[in-house]
Amino acid sequence: MKTLTILSPVAEDLQRVEQRLHQITQVEFPLPAAILADLFQSGGKRLRPALVLLAGHFGTYDRSRLIPLAAAVETLHTATLVHDDLIDNSLLRRGNPTMNTRWHGGVVVLVGDYLFAKAAELAAESESTEVAFLFAQTLGVICRGELRQAFSIGNGQPTISEYLERIFSKTASLFASSSKSGAVLTGATPSHCQALHDYGLHFGMAFQIVDDILDFTGTEGELGKPVGSDLRQGTITLPTIHYLLAYPGDNPVSHYLANSTDGKGRDDALQAAVQCITGSRAIELSYNSAREFISRAKEAALALPDTGYRHTLVELADYVIERRV
Amino acid sequence: MKTLTILSPVAEDLQRVEQRLHQITQVEFPLPAAILADLFQSGGKRLRPALVLLAGHFGTYDRSRLIPLAAAVETLHTATLVHDDLIDNSLLRRGNPTMNTRWHGGVVVLVGDYLFAKAAELAAESESTEVAFLFAQTLGVICRGELRQAFSIGNGQPTISEYLERIFSKTASLFASSSKSGAVLTGATPSHCQALHDYGLHFGMAFQIVDDILDFTGTEGELGKPVGSDLRQGTITLPTIHYLLAYPGDNPVSHYLANSTDGKGRDDALQAAVQCITGSRAIELSYNSAREFISRAKEAALALPDTGYRHTLVELADYVIERRV
Repeated sequence: MKTLTILSPVAEDLQRVEQRLHQITQVEFPLPAAILADLFQSGGKRLRPALVLLAGHFGTYDRSRLIPLAAAVETLHTATLVHDDLIDNSLLRRGNPTMNTRWHGGVVVLVGDYLFAKAAELAAESESTEVAFLFAQTLGVICRGELRQAFSIGNGQPTISEYLERIFSKTASLFASSSKSGAVLTGATPSHCQALHDYGLHFGMAFQIVDDILDFTGTEGELGKPVGSDLRQGTITLPTIHYLLAYPGDNPVSHYLANSTDGKGRDDALQAAVQCITGSRAIELSYNSAREFISRAKEAALALPDTGYRHTLVELADYVIERRV
Repeated sequence: MKTLTILSPVAEDLQRVEQRLHQITQVEFPLPAAILADLFQSGGKRLRPALVLLAGHFGTYDRSRLIPLAAAVETLHTATLVHDDLIDNSLLRRGNPTMNTRWHGGVVVLVGDYLFAKAAELAAESESTEVAFLFAQTLGVICRGELRQAFSIGNGQPTISEYLERIFSKTASLFASSSKSGAVLTGATPSHCQALHDYGLHFGMAFQIVDDILDFTGTEGELGKPVGSDLRQGTITLPTIHYLLAYPGDNPVSHYLANSTDGKGRDDALQAAVQCITGSRAIELSYNSAREFISRAKEAALALPDTGYRHTLVELADYVIERRV
């Protein structure tokens, strides 16, 4: 794993987190062990564990409890990705085939469940019932969000506020819990815990919006999956919503979403839809939203003591907007 | 839910557990709410929550923490059933179609995950990190057991000790954690905690063996699913192992397992295999094993103070052997 340069103040402990993640892959059966190793090696940036560790520096830093907690957060995240890919029937993630392209659904379910169990064990190692409760609640928020999405498919185009609610459940809630729990665990003051919660929340919102933008503006090489994958799966994200608000009539995007072509024509229709969106103001408007969330994240950080770690949080916030991958 | 007469000493608090389980089904989307209500109403005996409550009477009984814990145990159990049915591709459970016959796999995964989240929240409400850790570990044992089974299919007939290891992971581990955690939570002495752990463990082993016997000797009406469902799915349980040890040559059971017929012939072959097993000493030998585990469970209970609750534990142990459903 390559650590982002910005994260060098916590790089050493991130390596320790990596060792804990590696331990999870050491199961007695070679096949699941290989699957687990693949999952953890497939190039996540470890932003959630980094937030746990950074937040821990605003209380009494306690490595022995923060490292399992940081590993718990990444494990929980990985578990949700595994099940997500099954739910969405995705074929690629981070440039690698997803588990469900190679394994029977039952195996995918089991591997995800095993990771949930491991996440719960690691979280319990932090010896804080408040933290355990926080993570259980976050998993609940994530699942309720997914249930809402699963049962609303075909109910028409989501509004911006429905989109924001969805990415709060899917992404921002875990970022918020990550930074808050690092603070709670180390006995930071209630106002610093709140500031770190708010930082993580807004950071996570921006992170997901940029992810959704890059799905249109990135290259297949950068994304590790084909451009326009969300649209292909029928997932309507912020750029698409902005586009459809600006062009409510018949257009290549609504055409594509109405499923009126298939086969080879369908791929061309997707490309036309993607070009429409990237060529419109939808991308700029989406970036504006992301920047607004990043401003709020930085504002929350300003309530924290002026240390190098606060500086890192601010730099990390800027990185979210600038990143290409 | 009908409470077993034996459980009347904890019936009132079991009703409170039932209310907590009902709350879980109150989600804002009608469809998942209906699915969840179905799952919890489909007639479990609530033995695991009962063990939590009974065990709680050997320490300082604390209803406000035991009830969420008891609800957590049942919820965790239900979550594993939901995913199990998907993994095994079962069609019926407790006389009702399983979720995966009616819903897309993604929905089944999500509903199970949501229940995991709820179980974790309820367990965290017990405010004991020891209990939270115990449950996380138990979920890990269950998942590792299932992974072992998933990756050993086709590796030949399991031995008795492999079978016992499998039912320990699948069933007995959660029974052991249920009774132990009730004791831990209420500050029972270490030797009483150990006795309740051992009781639950042996109780759970016997419970699963009897379940596996009833799959052959029960009627479709009693079982809520066709007779011989395990064999149909290729799951080799204790009666089959005993039969094959007694008749190592070619016979209707090995014939069925070798998949040498299909279509209508396959159903007849299953019926012939079931008749061979029920007509052999395999059932008696399996009951002997179950009775041995029940003796050990009762022995463990004898280390507890001689109260009405201990008497209930002993009665419940006898019930496991006598039950028809």
